Amino acid sequence: MISMVIVGTGNVAKHLFDAFMAQSDIEIIQVYGRNKGTLEHFKGCVNVSSKASEIKKADVYIIAVRDDAIVDVSKKLNLQKALLVHTSGSAPMSSLSQETRRGVFYPLQTFSANRKVNFKEIPICIEAENKLDYELLHELASAISDKVIQIDSEQRKALHLAAVFANNFTNHIYHTAQEICTQNDVPFELLFPLINETAAKIQDLPPLDAQTGPARRNDKGTLEKHLAQLKHKKHKKIYSLLSKSIRKTYGKKL
Amino acid sequence: MISMVIVGTGNVAKHLFDAFMAQSDIEIIQVYGRNKGTLEHFKGCVNVSSKASEIKKADVYIIAVRDDAIVDVSKKLNLQKALLVHTSGSAPMSSLSQETRRGVFYPLQTFSANRKVNFKEIPICIEAENKLDYELLHELASAISDKVIQIDSEQRKALHLAAVFANNFTNHIYHTAQEICTQNDVPFELLFPLINETAAKIQDLPPLDAQTGPARRNDKGTLEKHLAQLKHKKHKKIYSLLSKSIRKTYGKKL
Repeated sequence: MISMVIVGTGNVAKHLFDAFMAQSDIEIIQVYGRNKGTLEHFKGCVNVSSKASEIKKADVYIIAVRDDAIVDVSKKLNLQKALLVHTSGSAPMSSLSQETRRGVFYPLQTFSANRKVNFKEIPICIEAENKLDYELLHELASAISDKVIQIDSEQRKALHLAAVFANNFTNHIYHTAQEICTQNDVPFELLFPLINETAAKIQDLPPLDAQTGPARRNDKGTLEKHLAQLKHKKHKKIYSLLSKSIRKTYGKKL
Repeated sequence: MISMVIVGTGNVAKHLFDAFMAQSDIEIIQVYGRNKGTLEHFKGCVNVSSKASEIKKADVYIIAVRDDAIVDVSKKLNLQKALLVHTSGSAPMSSLSQETRRGVFYPLQTFSANRKVNFKEIPICIEAENKLDYELLHELASAISDKVIQIDSEQRKALHLAAVFANNFTNHIYHTAQEICTQNDVPFELLFPLINETAAKIQDLPPLDAQTGPARRNDKGTLEKHLAQLKHKKHKKIYSLLSKSIRKTYGKKL
């Protein structure tokens, strides 16, 4: 039985709470958070507290707070020699208080309030200062996910940056596609099967080989027509830059 | 029973061929193509020909050839008064020979040689010059897809442009994410669940509301760190432009 305290009450904390609550060999003994309103969500299921002095003893403390709050929170908890891990993609392990046994427990996924996720499929990237703690984190992560991987702070930073492209930028591209649909009175929903297939395809075939379209085949006529067709300067800029970037990628190879 | 001739032997032609062959109330009576090598694929199942003079009579001729070949092919077929449709997202219906009854049968999907697609989910955008032909195209499309929609040439052009964003540009963003992973020795596969969730989320929530990340919350510290972290000029340019575009989108609303 591994005992844990979850520190934080946001989306990541909630999703981790749900995933660990479903495990019989893991006991969440407390949820700690400074925001009494969001703590309410956990009340009834588990002990909750917003006072550092009331924090309970546990095998591991999982800090799921905003990146820029990690340093402060980990100091305020004042948990000497305890195993403390954060859940951030970009913060280094060293942002945790030096007086603790430090580690990282980073689930690589985007979490939203109202969307269920299948934790079994979510990669959990772990790191720890010492071997025994690493093994405990591995046991913990394996209880909820089938994809547990050791990733150091440098690699995790790179992975998080790649995730900004794969998630944030892709989402903005979707938004742009929706704007074009709305401006031209066509339902955005028509693009959903294409969006699904685009995401599925690169899991079989490297995106370098999956690339199609006018920029890929250097079809200048269509590129010009498309640019003329776009009404917003913002859309033209994205079209132009990404088409050029595709040209550069394949130009070298032609 | 609707009889048809498929003109073309590429990916779209092959996928349409497979989908229509599975329908008992539709008869493919011929596949016509100028490339004898690729015609081989259809031989044995159906009559094939590469001579315009040998083309058979049918209720509808589906032209699935490259956009820039539509005008030529439709003229060469010399099919007066027959119902001729092309399958292109960007070519107008008027690119087909004036002497025919013209229409469009545009399946909105990216087709690859070795990937099966579920036609039932693929939107088929149809258009025709006259009502009876429209009804025949509707019957034809409904036989293979649950999503048949009337879209005129202008709307289709816009839809196709939006599809360039949703497919071509998204794929290039995936490629960039993979480059960052490779450069930093982390497996790109770790991003697959995130990529799937990003695509799935916007089918519940508009991408405008689904947006997260440093640009969305105007976290200048992280934006600067990320830019410094990127090694390639090409990656920096994409990061910078898309972050600015996200800023503009939400800046207005703050």
